[in-house]
Amino acid sequence: MAKRITQCPIARSVEHVGDEWSVLILRDALYGLTRFDEFQKSLGIAPNILTRRLNSLVEAGMLERAQYSEHPPRFEYRLTPAGRDFRSVVLAMAAWGNRHFAHEGLSMMIVDAKTGEVADPILVDRKSGRPLTTPDFRIAAGPAASEIMKKRYQNIPPTTSMLETAK
Amino acid sequence: MAKRITQCPIARSVEHVGDEWSVLILRDALYGLTRFDEFQKSLGIAPNILTRRLNSLVEAGMLERAQYSEHPPRFEYRLTPAGRDFRSVVLAMAAWGNRHFAHEGLSMMIVDAKTGEVADPILVDRKSGRPLTTPDFRIAAGPAASEIMKKRYQNIPPTTSMLETAK
Repeated sequence: MAKRITQCPIARSVEHVGDEWSVLILRDALYGLTRFDEFQKSLGIAPNILTRRLNSLVEAGMLERAQYSEHPPRFEYRLTPAGRDFRSVVLAMAAWGNRHFAHEGLSMMIVDAKTGEVADPILVDRKSGRPLTTPDFRIAAGPAASEIMKKRYQNIPPTTSMLETAK
Repeated sequence: MAKRITQCPIARSVEHVGDEWSVLILRDALYGLTRFDEFQKSLGIAPNILTRRLNSLVEAGMLERAQYSEHPPRFEYRLTPAGRDFRSVVLAMAAWGNRHFAHEGLSMMIVDAKTGEVADPILVDRKSGRPLTTPDFRIAAGPAASEIMKKRYQNIPPTTSMLETAK
C-alpha cells in the first residue's frame, strides 16, 4: 500500500487485523479464550492457519504468548492493551451486524446487567456525551497529516456520510 | 465456516466486509467517492481487484451500482443504508488506530465543528447514554440464539474483556 494510505487510522487498523480469522480470534479472546485448542474448537479452523494467524496477531502487538506449563511446554495467548481495546471495533461490528443481518432475531446482545434491557450502542464524544453527528462534528486533518492527507480531508463535505446526520 | 459461527453478529459483519480492500473502499465511499477512477486513484489498487471488490460489495448489499451516463454508459457506486451505517465500524477503527498507532501524532480526527476541539469517540447505550462497561452491562444470548450459542454466551464471565470495566 502507498505511504499516503498508511497515515489513515482506518487503514492502519485494517493492516493490524485485516483478515477475517484475525477478527474472530480477537472476538474469542475478548470472550475469554486463551488456548490454541479453545480457539480451534470455537472456530473450526485448520491448525496451520490458526498458528499463522496467532503468530501474526502476536507480531502486530494484539496478543502476547505466555508459557503456562513447563512439562510439557505449553503456551497461551493473552490480549495486550491494544488487543483488549479492539473490543470497541468488535462491538461496533456486532451492533451493525445485529441491525442489518439478524433477520431471524438477535442471537447476541449487550444488556443492562440489572434490568436485562437490550442496549443500543452508539458512538458519542466521551467528554460531552454528544453523538458524533453532522453538523455538530466534522472530519479534520490532524497535526501530523501530510500534504496529501490534508487535501483529502479538506475535500470532505461538512455533511459527510462518514458521520451520521443529526435528526 | 460452521453454522454456529454465522449466528454471531461479529462473524456476520466480517463475512460482509471481510477483506482489507473492502473496508478501505467503504471508507472512501463514506468520504464521498463514487466512481471507479476515484477509488482507483485513492487506493492505488489494480483495476481487476477493484472491480472484484466493488462487485462483491454490491452483492453484499453495501453498495449499489447506478448509471450516471448513457453515452458512453458509465456507472457509479452509491452506499446503501447498510453501507452508510457501516460508518460506526469505520469510526471505531479510526479511533482505535489513533489511540494505538499514531505515534507521530494524529493525521485524522473528528472535531467539534464549532470549537475545533478533538472528539474522543466511545460507545454508549443510545437511550441511557451510559458507557457500555462492566458491571453495568453484560453480553447475553438473544431470543434467536441456538443452543450452542446460548452455551457460548452463558460461559462468558460477567467481567468479560469484551466490555471495558467501569473506572
